[in-house]
This record gives sequence, C-alpha cells and structure tokens, in this order.
Amino acid sequence: MAGTDSTLSEASLPGGTTPAIILVRPQLAENVGMCCRAMLNCGLDDLRLVAPKQGWPTEKGRAAASGADLVVDGARIVETTEEAIADLTLVYATTARPRDSSGSAQVPKQAAIELRQASEKGQKTGIIFGPEAKGLNNDDVALADSILAVPLNPAFKSLNLAQAVFCISYEWFQAGVDTDVWRKAATTKPRELAPKKDLVHMFDHLETELIDCGFLNPPEKRPAMIQNIRTMFQRAQLTDQEVRTMRGIISGLTRKHERKR
Amino acid sequence: MAGTDSTLSEASLPGGTTPAIILVRPQLAENVGMCCRAMLNCGLDDLRLVAPKQGWPTEKGRAAASGADLVVDGARIVETTEEAIADLTLVYATTARPRDSSGSAQVPKQAAIELRQASEKGQKTGIIFGPEAKGLNNDDVALADSILAVPLNPAFKSLNLAQAVFCISYEWFQAGVDTDVWRKAATTKPRELAPKKDLVHMFDHLETELIDCGFLNPPEKRPAMIQNIRTMFQRAQLTDQEVRTMRGIISGLTRKHERKR
Repeated sequence: MAGTDSTLSEASLPGGTTPAIILVRPQLAENVGMCCRAMLNCGLDDLRLVAPKQGWPTEKGRAAASGADLVVDGARIVETTEEAIADLTLVYATTARPRDSSGSAQVPKQAAIELRQASEKGQKTGIIFGPEAKGLNNDDVALADSILAVPLNPAFKSLNLAQAVFCISYEWFQAGVDTDVWRKAATTKPRELAPKKDLVHMFDHLETELIDCGFLNPPEKRPAMIQNIRTMFQRAQLTDQEVRTMRGIISGLTRKHERKR
Repeated sequence: MAGTDSTLSEASLPGGTTPAIILVRPQLAENVGMCCRAMLNCGLDDLRLVAPKQGWPTEKGRAAASGADLVVDGARIVETTEEAIADLTLVYATTARPRDSSGSAQVPKQAAIELRQASEKGQKTGIIFGPEAKGLNNDDVALADSILAVPLNPAFKSLNLAQAVFCISYEWFQAGVDTDVWRKAATTKPRELAPKKDLVHMFDHLETELIDCGFLNPPEKRPAMIQNIRTMFQRAQLTDQEVRTMRGIISGLTRKHERKR
C-alpha cells in the first residue's frame, strides 16, 4: 500500500465543500500526521489545529503523514476553538462519553449523511476532536451543534485520535460512494445557518447582560449555567436572521426600563 | 478517552465466534500494538501473527496497544499464513489493489454482514492483512475465499495497517449493533421535553415583555414576528428545566434596570 502524490483537485470530491477536521490541543505531532493521512485517504483536506502542543508542522508529524503533504502544509493553526470554527455553520463534537445535555449522541454513519446534505447546500461543516488523553472539555462541546460518538466495545472504548478521525472521515467518504443514500434522505428546504462567530457574539452579548443583572450568580455556578444556555441555543440551529432577532430581543428587554425613565 | 481494563467475557459480543485478524509479516511492532487496540475497541480478540519482523510481544508494541493486553498476550505466532488460517472456514484477504483472480473485491460493509452470518452458523472466520509496505503477495491472496478492499480516495489510497484493521473491525462491530439500542444505552437519561402549556406560558411572558419594550412594533407585523420567535424556540426542543431557565433570563433582563434604580 505505497503512497502516491496527490493534488487538491484530485483529492477533492464533487458536490460541495468537504468537512473541516478540527484537532483541539493535540499532544503529539505524530498523531496529527496520522490524522493527515487518514483525512486524505478519505478525500478530506481542510485541517485546523487549535494550539498543537508540539507545534506544526514537525518532522515526525510529516513522516507520520506518509505523503499527505497537501494536508500537512494546508493546516491552519489557531489559538482557540472559537477561531477554528468561526466560518462554519454545522459543527459536531466527538466524545467517548456522550453527555445528555445536547440530546442523544449521533453515530458516524448518520452524521455523515447530515454532513453530506449540508455540504450540498453549500454549508461549511466541521468535526471537533479533543486532545488524546482527555477528549474535549465541556466548553468546546458546548460550541457544537451535535455530539458524535463511535459505537465501540463498552469495555474498551479508548480510541486512538487518528482512528477517530479515520472513522468519521471514512463514513463521510462512504456516504458519498453511495450517493443515493444521502440524496434520498435530503430534506426539502435548506436553512442557512448562522456562522459560529455570529453565534459566539450573541452568546457574549447575552452573557454580559445576564452577569450585569445578577442572573448568573453565584459566580462558581456561572460556567455550568452558561454552558446550559449555550447548549439550548445551539440546539435551535439558528439562522443569520434569527441571531439578529435574538440580539434585538436581548437589547429590547434590557433597554425596556431605561426607555421608561 | 482513557483506557479501561477489560476481560475476555466483557469484550466478546454475543452471537457466535468473532473473526480472527491475521497480520502477515508485519514490519513494526508498534503497528501491531495499534492493531491490538483497534481490535479490542471493536470487540475482537483473536490475533494471529505470521512471522512478525520485530518479534512479539515487544515493549513498544505493548505501549502502542494502550491497555489492550488481552489481545497482546493472546496473540498466536506462526511461521506461515497456511498455519494461521488452518482452523478457519471463511477467509478474506485485504488489498489496496484488487486483483481479478479471485473475483471482484468486497467492500467492508458487505463483508461484515457475511462474517456475522458465518459466525452465527458457528463457522470460524478471519481476515488477512499484508505487511505495511507491500501488502499481501499473490500466494497469500490465493488462500482466501474473497478479496476485501476499502473504498478510498483514488488519489491517496495508502492506508496505515492499524487503520485497515480498525476499518474492518469497526464494520464488523457496527453490523452487530442495533444502533437504537446503543443510542438508548449511551445517553444516560432521555430528555424530558417541556409540556406545551409551559412553553406557551413562556411565550406569553416573552411576548408581553417584548410588546412592553416596543420590540414588536409596528403592530401589523406583530403576528409574523411572534411566529418567527416561537418557531425558533420550538426548534430547540426545550426541557422543563430549560423553560424555567428561559423564564429566569427574561425576568432577569427586564428586571435589570428596575433593580438599578
């Protein structure tokens, strides 16, 4: 199974954009390299690294990528998960321990169909993976629309990072091999979801006001309360227009008594 | 994603024997270790190694297995592929370059179903994987009943050995999982959606405040605006607790400037 050279045009598949893979604080560059290889195996080339511990690219990382230089060199490095997903409208967070806060976890096969449908409509999508040892923290999970978990042996669920990336990428590729599966499942009317950066601004606005009015007290409970509120709004899959409406509502409610004076 | 201890009985799934994974002349013990981990992730524990180049087990190999000692220590070492498959009745050979000598290649999803069916009937099955650099030779392929190839990006098909093992093992596991059963088990408690009457009270509360602050003007646009806001919150599928949170937010934001006075 020797590697071959590839170019972006060869690797990309027709029918919309491909999902971005976002690795949050990956510890080992070698693992990142293996993720590059797994991605390109499945026709994905949009890699984003949030604060990779050993930097990127490294010599070991490139060696582990086994010729997937296209992905290695195209990777974007950012400082925060928010930056990494700013231009995306549909984001999945992967976890080995599904939390019930966002409803039930999706399986990769189903998520792959939804990702294909979103790409068809021109939406930009992405999947977030946590660091090797600990997985994603709650703040990162709260930024996602849905949680994704791979059904595995319950007695041994510890999945290598590159295996997790391969699994999701593989299912995405397979969903495109049998195009009928996802085309048939396609829903009738496309909704244009708001970019994540607008959602984050809305959260900032709301949370600032809620701190100001004392709703987010006591301070030690604040992170959990904020997470619950974000989860609720993530689930609503807001459009551009709806985010603007929500911001109007927040401003309206807080202005109310100012205007009366 | 921390590893957990596992025993054979926990790792094995009901419904017949599990397929054997046969690695022919693997070059790096580290790769063999990663295969052990991938296998146990998917409930497989029968590993057979044909003339592993670095011997087995090795320290590096065990480290790469990340706790899948059950597979590491249970592996059988043999000299030839013939010996490795002697007790099996249905054998697949994996290759990146399907040869037409044994008919057309199967995809993993289809092979997984056939492996499950054979196991149900008490047949012993196995999948052969070749060395990292070159894949299986023709003699090894000729020992198999069918050829198995993973559909991948044609421009970059070079798949890591552990990824190949994971892919087949994953499909085998998925073929045996009733996704719904798994999903139900994975989410600790189902989300209890709020009764519609509580949602309507929440809407009344919000809309009263929004009329009061002038957000729902002009009045002739009010019905459409209200409908859009309700749609947005309906989509979020709020629980009891979340409806209470939302009411707290509305009260908090409107009280804000009252309290300040």
